[in-house]
Amino acid sequence: MLGLMQDQPLLISSLIEFAERHHGDAEIVSRRVEGDIHRYTYRDLAKRARQVANALNDMAVPPAARVATLAWNGYRHMELYFGVSGSGRVVHTVNPRLHPEQIAWIINHAEDQVMCFDATFLPLIKAVADKCPTVKAWIMLCDADKLPADSGIPGLQSYEAWMGAAASIYAWPVMDENTASSMCYTSGTTGNPKAALYSHRSTVLHAYAISLPDVMCLSARDAVLPVVPMFHVNAWGLPYAAALTGSKVVFPGPGMDGKSVFDLIEAEKVTFAAGVPTVWQMMLSHIQTNGLRFSSLKRTVIGGSACPPAMIHAFQNDYGVEVLHAWGMTEISPLGTLCTLKNKHLDLPAEQQMKIRLKQGRGIFGVDMKIVDGAGAELPWDGKAYGDLLVKGPWTVAGYYKGDNTNVLIQDADGRGWFPTGDVATIDADGYMQITDRSKDVIKSGGEWISSIDIENIAVAHPAVAMAACIGVFHPKWDERPILVVAKKPAAEVSREELLAFYEGKTAKWQIPDDVVFVDAIPLGATGKMLKAKLREQLADYKLPGL
Amino acid sequence: MLGLMQDQPLLISSLIEFAERHHGDAEIVSRRVEGDIHRYTYRDLAKRARQVANALNDMAVPPAARVATLAWNGYRHMELYFGVSGSGRVVHTVNPRLHPEQIAWIINHAEDQVMCFDATFLPLIKAVADKCPTVKAWIMLCDADKLPADSGIPGLQSYEAWMGAAASIYAWPVMDENTASSMCYTSGTTGNPKAALYSHRSTVLHAYAISLPDVMCLSARDAVLPVVPMFHVNAWGLPYAAALTGSKVVFPGPGMDGKSVFDLIEAEKVTFAAGVPTVWQMMLSHIQTNGLRFSSLKRTVIGGSACPPAMIHAFQNDYGVEVLHAWGMTEISPLGTLCTLKNKHLDLPAEQQMKIRLKQGRGIFGVDMKIVDGAGAELPWDGKAYGDLLVKGPWTVAGYYKGDNTNVLIQDADGRGWFPTGDVATIDADGYMQITDRSKDVIKSGGEWISSIDIENIAVAHPAVAMAACIGVFHPKWDERPILVVAKKPAAEVSREELLAFYEGKTAKWQIPDDVVFVDAIPLGATGKMLKAKLREQLADYKLPGL
Repeated sequence: MLGLMQDQPLLISSLIEFAERHHGDAEIVSRRVEGDIHRYTYRDLAKRARQVANALNDMAVPPAARVATLAWNGYRHMELYFGVSGSGRVVHTVNPRLHPEQIAWIINHAEDQVMCFDATFLPLIKAVADKCPTVKAWIMLCDADKLPADSGIPGLQSYEAWMGAAASIYAWPVMDENTASSMCYTSGTTGNPKAALYSHRSTVLHAYAISLPDVMCLSARDAVLPVVPMFHVNAWGLPYAAALTGSKVVFPGPGMDGKSVFDLIEAEKVTFAAGVPTVWQMMLSHIQTNGLRFSSLKRTVIGGSACPPAMIHAFQNDYGVEVLHAWGMTEISPLGTLCTLKNKHLDLPAEQQMKIRLKQGRGIFGVDMKIVDGAGAELPWDGKAYGDLLVKGPWTVAGYYKGDNTNVLIQDADGRGWFPTGDVATIDADGYMQITDRSKDVIKSGGEWISSIDIENIAVAHPAVAMAACIGVFHPKWDERPILVVAKKPAAEVSREELLAFYEGKTAKWQIPDDVVFVDAIPLGATGKMLKAKLREQLADYKLPGL
Repeated sequence: MLGLMQDQPLLISSLIEFAERHHGDAEIVSRRVEGDIHRYTYRDLAKRARQVANALNDMAVPPAARVATLAWNGYRHMELYFGVSGSGRVVHTVNPRLHPEQIAWIINHAEDQVMCFDATFLPLIKAVADKCPTVKAWIMLCDADKLPADSGIPGLQSYEAWMGAAASIYAWPVMDENTASSMCYTSGTTGNPKAALYSHRSTVLHAYAISLPDVMCLSARDAVLPVVPMFHVNAWGLPYAAALTGSKVVFPGPGMDGKSVFDLIEAEKVTFAAGVPTVWQMMLSHIQTNGLRFSSLKRTVIGGSACPPAMIHAFQNDYGVEVLHAWGMTEISPLGTLCTLKNKHLDLPAEQQMKIRLKQGRGIFGVDMKIVDGAGAELPWDGKAYGDLLVKGPWTVAGYYKGDNTNVLIQDADGRGWFPTGDVATIDADGYMQITDRSKDVIKSGGEWISSIDIENIAVAHPAVAMAACIGVFHPKWDERPILVVAKKPAAEVSREELLAFYEGKTAKWQIPDDVVFVDAIPLGATGKMLKAKLREQLADYKLPGL
């Protein structure tokens, strides 16, 4: 027997309709590529999103067609979020930090029909345009008079001329809530990028969840600054959550340096900001150097990579800003966990609270987690046992766009599919998860796992070590044993024996690397991460001593 | 094209599984009918909810069967919420304040197969048991040794013996999220009661929404006291929202007097409480009389009827507790609006903030609202125009259980169905809704509407008036004209002419009643509301002067 409740799908268009009706005069403020500050309201945004929908109709862009963006955080980008998805197309946010060849590959794989880009990225577009035959319309996010005369892009239009000509009356279509709404490619370190294809349902549920008090805690009293780019998993879903809660939105545009971000926070009385640690580090340096204070900022969420304890300390103790660790992935829309304290932690000494705050956080309702051993058996939540982290839930992917989606999930005994995150983690009795390594980097020695990150952290504490990578190499008895690959600081000296001795008392004996290999440099990826796969290739002929 | 996200239904069982895994040691504290305080954790609750599910299986209670409760707020009642719904049956919460004949009617209409009741209600059960042939099992919420020897109820079992004998291992079934999960009958003042039949989907979405910062604002740092009964629209959804957020729960049992509620708040460090105005009025008297202070309480949500300004003042100014007005209905699961301020209101003077706080509040994402005139045309949101309040959304009913569900919703031009709330309201430009009357009580005079409540509020300000009801009577030219029905205070005197003159300057001339009828008493319902339908019957032969 079914309930007798209204059958109303969860749609992205409902979010912008709600914001327009209930928070029509709440502001959207953007630092533009043009350099100035632009401000308008949800009422304006809703109207222009409808114009985007009509402009796509006028061009006969069919339902489910991909409309790409290559853009900073700003109001026009937000209009595309709602106008494209709300009208039944799929907004495809392309990461401009990728190599042009990768960008062309992604556009072709997605078969994007329209590309909307900021003026900043015109050189990039010029480099890829003739390699992207599916794109029928190139639209630069600017006024008509800012359009370059000789761009070389056939039929290039300005966004304002394009959508400005369209009608602003439009009835959002009612669709199946599982209809695809947006897509985002992972920046996979191996193989080709893969795309998560989000749905209206997953997006709206994620927006509810991330607005909760234990997550981003968003309300109509907040002014939200998404420093995290809208081309990084939809700015962690903040544009949707802001509309759901009627929060004011403040967009930084291309101005990501410490001063620009700080000035915007103060000018617009931002209460909540979210981004990766490097941005906060720059801002912290700026305010420390100039003796500044925050007058409105209450909370920041930091994700993307682990946040240094000193930074959390400084924000909280020196500036009264709460720093919350978060963890997520492109495949989880992206939020999986957020680190807020429970009631029982509130009276703990600051030092013990910090221990908790350094973890990636606890699961939100809508993300089930478990850690499993090599055989797939669930491991205890004791904060010690670590294993592969698996997740499931309505905003976790079941497969990839155009992928062979038969093997993405791991089925459990009850026939439920879990997504393997590729992370190795512990979970404590209170449900706080801590990443200890990437699955492909963990060293499996004699049935036990060794965290490569733990071993590296010890090595980089040695004064002569500039960078260290721990990788596993074949061993006939133990399957794998760890070795340490070290790049020394300029003019510094340290021997293999000195480094191995440095581990004494700092970790269990069996976890100490079997060998040290000195190299001039460790290969790094575009975002500064060590490329261990490449390192393993370079050491393909390496053999452990004595074998 | 559909998105590629996991197909995971929104189920009530997921809420309790989440609470068990992520907040296993968070407490559920209950003042019991037995008089003592009982405390355990979500881990215990989850285990016992599984036992309830197994006990129902052991009795071969089929899927979709209705399992009724007649119980106070307490842990056993919460176990039934999760055990019954989670296993695919429908939990039917019966209001013990109804007349036994109505209770019997409701049980028969719902065809309840099991009835679980608190010891308090044994006399009530004795009065109805032989009139309820569908009920196959009567279960008293007590230990086996508390069961009365000669209850007269055939096969009466104790809850502890019944569910205690069942296994605690159970895999919650995966169902369509639109499956019926619970039901609640409206206490309709006219005609037979009608039942809203909630689904897993509507319940989980409502739980997300009411936990938001702008609604109940619930987190794992809260201790929640639902004073609102679990037989009143599922205690406004708090048991579900508490599990979703990992809040501690504190149940008052039958102790609703000011002292009992206050003592519980202090002993259990309650941060958030919700209930009807009368309970808060009792508590306020208690703390004022005894010079007490709250040490932990931060917020209360007040709904069910309008809250007197003096009470909001006292809570906020004298005791530092924020009072939030809420509005809802059985048909909306129940939450429709909640009155929190927006960012732009924070700097307003207290007096202007109070004007906003006295409204019923603004819509939550998931509840669309509009006001319409007699012809169904939408009225502006200007805080002045008033009309019939219509709502729609995924936790609003589409029909009633066993009802003729073809005419419940009003279709708009776009073919979307809206539920007519039966309230007349204004909505201001910021989306704050204010109830001005019930649709059936508003007086329609010459195409204009007159709020009966406005007219009554003026009359009761006269020192001689104990109670006043304004009703519309037939008029050949104006369709309806208002008259005032007045019960005078003992030994007080006032004439028809004096009362009509009292309106001069207080309202528009055409809104002044045409006549005053003095009566000894105005008929009241069980909850103290004036029964205007009965009054109209009593005045069936009344004719306006001069007609």
